Amino acid sequence: MNKVVTCVAPVNIATIKYWGKRDEHLILPLNDSVSLTLDCDQMHAKTSVIAGPFIDEDSVWLNGQIMSIETNERLKKCFHLIRNLIKIRKGENSQEAKWNIRVCSENNFPTAAGLASSAAGYACLVYTLANAFGLVDEDLPSIARQGSGSACRSIYGGFVHWKAGIDDLGSDSTAIQIAADTHWPEMRIIILVVNDSQKKTSSTVGMKQAVETSELLKYRVQKCVPERTKEIIQAITVKNFEKFAEITMRDSNQFHAVCLDTYPPCVYLNQVSHDIISFVHDYNEAVGQIKVSYTFDAGPNAFLFIQQNDLNLFMSELVNVFPSEQPNSSYLRGIISTLPYEVCDSVKPFGFKPKDKDLLKYIMVTKLGSGPRCVNDHLLNDDGTLKSK
Amino acid sequence: MNKVVTCVAPVNIATIKYWGKRDEHLILPLNDSVSLTLDCDQMHAKTSVIAGPFIDEDSVWLNGQIMSIETNERLKKCFHLIRNLIKIRKGENSQEAKWNIRVCSENNFPTAAGLASSAAGYACLVYTLANAFGLVDEDLPSIARQGSGSACRSIYGGFVHWKAGIDDLGSDSTAIQIAADTHWPEMRIIILVVNDSQKKTSSTVGMKQAVETSELLKYRVQKCVPERTKEIIQAITVKNFEKFAEITMRDSNQFHAVCLDTYPPCVYLNQVSHDIISFVHDYNEAVGQIKVSYTFDAGPNAFLFIQQNDLNLFMSELVNVFPSEQPNSSYLRGIISTLPYEVCDSVKPFGFKPKDKDLLKYIMVTKLGSGPRCVNDHLLNDDGTLKSK
Repeated sequence: MNKVVTCVAPVNIATIKYWGKRDEHLILPLNDSVSLTLDCDQMHAKTSVIAGPFIDEDSVWLNGQIMSIETNERLKKCFHLIRNLIKIRKGENSQEAKWNIRVCSENNFPTAAGLASSAAGYACLVYTLANAFGLVDEDLPSIARQGSGSACRSIYGGFVHWKAGIDDLGSDSTAIQIAADTHWPEMRIIILVVNDSQKKTSSTVGMKQAVETSELLKYRVQKCVPERTKEIIQAITVKNFEKFAEITMRDSNQFHAVCLDTYPPCVYLNQVSHDIISFVHDYNEAVGQIKVSYTFDAGPNAFLFIQQNDLNLFMSELVNVFPSEQPNSSYLRGIISTLPYEVCDSVKPFGFKPKDKDLLKYIMVTKLGSGPRCVNDHLLNDDGTLKSK
Repeated sequence: MNKVVTCVAPVNIATIKYWGKRDEHLILPLNDSVSLTLDCDQMHAKTSVIAGPFIDEDSVWLNGQIMSIETNERLKKCFHLIRNLIKIRKGENSQEAKWNIRVCSENNFPTAAGLASSAAGYACLVYTLANAFGLVDEDLPSIARQGSGSACRSIYGGFVHWKAGIDDLGSDSTAIQIAADTHWPEMRIIILVVNDSQKKTSSTVGMKQAVETSELLKYRVQKCVPERTKEIIQAITVKNFEKFAEITMRDSNQFHAVCLDTYPPCVYLNQVSHDIISFVHDYNEAVGQIKVSYTFDAGPNAFLFIQQNDLNLFMSELVNVFPSEQPNSSYLRGIISTLPYEVCDSVKPFGFKPKDKDLLKYIMVTKLGSGPRCVNDHLLNDDGTLKSK
C-alpha cells in the first residue's frame, strides 16, 4: 500500500436514543437505537490513512493535533481490531499486519459544538482503514461501535437500526440499514446550533451514571424502547411522517427525562432548547398537523425533521422567532438554494413573538446521505507527511 | 352560631410527590405522597367563617375578591360535603343544616408565587368550617382532598403521609401523621422564590396530561414511589437526615422527569432552578456530606431542607452565590434572628462563584409546624360584614 486512502463519513442523528451500556468495555448498549444518516456534503469527518514499511510508528492526527494512541483506549482498540482482521485475512505474518499506520483526520464542523463528531470520526477511521486494507466486507459497524457506540450507525446511509443484541460478546450488536436515503428524499434536517457556555457531563459519564442511578431507565429499556423501535421502523417503512415525528419527539423527551432522573441529575437542555421545543409544538398546533419534530442529543442543540414541501414556510417562521444580528448568508447554512427567509413584518401568518436576537449561533439545513465514501482530496502526502494547507 | 370562627392553616411541601389522579372527580391520587407541614408563623392561609339565619346566601371572599361557588366545582364540593356531615351529625332538618355560610379567606404570602397556596387555602376552609360546626373529629383530610388534593396533608402538622388507597370511592385515601413537628425540631426549610415570568401548565392540567401520555409515570407509580415512601418514612422515624435528603432530591427529579416525559413536555424548572440544583450538589460535595437537599413543585421555586446546626454556614454561601440588590432585611425573611449573611469577600471557604444579582426574589427560612389552629384575629365581624383594615 503506497497510496494514501481518504474517506469521508457522516454524522447520524438518533430518533430512538442510545443511552446506557450493558458492557462498558465492548460498548454494548442496553437498548436498540434508530438513526438518520446525514449528507456528507454539509457535515463530515474526513480521514486519510497511509501504511507501509516507511511509516516509523502508528500515529493519529486529529484536527491538527497529534493524539496519543497508547493512552486513548478506544483508539487503541480500533487499531487492534483492524490489525486482528488483517492477520485473519492476510495471514499472521503478512507484511500488512506489521506495517505502521499514519492517520490524519478532520471534521468540517466544530468538534466542540456537540454535533456527534465522535460518531462521524470513528466511523470514518474504521471505514478508511477498511478501505486501505481491503476489509470493506467485514462487520465494520461492530468495530466502529467500539470506538464510539453511535459510530456504528454512521457506517450506513439512510435510516439505520443498531440492535442491542443479547450476546455477552456482542456478536449480535451491530447496525443494519432500514432504508436507503433514496427511500425518503423529501426528508430535511434543520440543525439549530445554540449559543451555550454551560459545562456538560460527557455522554460517556452521563450514561454510566444513568445506568447506576436512574430507576426510570430500567423501564425505558425494558418496555418503552422495544415498542417504539418497532413503531418507528414501521413509520419509516411506510413514510408516515406524523408518526415518525411524534415518536422522535417523545423519545428525545424521554431520554432527557432519564437524564433528569439520574442522581445527581444530568441536564443537557438549556432555556433555548426548551424555547425551541415549545416553538415546534406551537407551530404544529398552528398548522393543525405535525409538520416538524425535534430531537436533542447530550447537548442543547436541536435537530429538527421536516419534509421539503413544508420547509420554506417553517423556515420563515423560525428566522422570525429566532432572529440573528448576522446576515442570512452566515446565519443560514447548508442546502438553502435561495435565501427567502427574511424577517418580514407584513407576513407573520401565525403571530409568533420574536425572541431575543442571537440565541442561535447558526442554522444548518441538510438532508439524508448515503453513508461513508472514498474521496480524492487527501490530508496526507504519499510519503506520509501532512499536507500543508 | 353567632360568633365568627377563624383559623390558620399551613403550607406543606412534598418530599415524595403527588402527580397523577386515579379519579379526577374524587381527587384520588395514583400514588402515596409524603410531606412536611410548615410553621404557620411564616406562611399561612387564614379563614373566617360565620353562619346563621342572618346570612342571606353562601358566599366566599378570597384575598378581597368574591368567588362564585356555583361555577367553582371544588369549592361547591367542599360546601356540600360539610353540609352532608352537618345533616348526619345534627339531623337532616336541623337549623345548622339550613344556615347560609359566609367565608372570608386570605393568604399572608403571594398566591401566584407557586407556593402551594391552594393546599393551605382548602385545608383552612375545611378546618375552619369543621370548627364552626363542631365537626373536628371527622375525617377532614378526605374533605380537604376534594378541594385540592395536597390540601389533605395540611390538616396535620409535622410529617404527613397521604395514602393513595385502593377503594374506588376513596374511603382509604386519607392523610395520617407520621411524626409531629416536635420529633425533628432541628429541621429548617429554606424557600427560594425565583424571579420568573414564564407561562406554566397548571398542575391539574399537567398531571392529567402525564397520566394520559407518560410511559414513565406508570413505572414511577407502580415501582418507585412505593419503595421510596417506605424508605423515607423509615428515614424520618430514625431522623436519618442524609437518607431523607437524598430520597427527597431523587423524588423531585423523578417528578420533573415524568413532566418532561409528558407529551407535549411539561417544564416547570427554569435555568435558576437548575442553578440551585447544581449549587446544592456542589455544596454537599464540598462539605463531604449531604447537608442540604432540594425539592421543587410545579414551579421554579426551590424548597431546601437543612438542619439548624448547618444553617448559618450554608446561608452565607447561598447569599454569596445568589446575591441581591435588596438589603438583607427584605431579601432574607422568616426565622433569621440575626442577619449575619453578609457577602464577605474574605470568607469564601468553598470558592463558589457568585451568579448574577436578583435571580431570586427573596429567601424565606422557616421550620416545621403543628398544623392548623384557631385564632382570635378575625376577618369578619359577628354580623357577617367584612372587617375593614
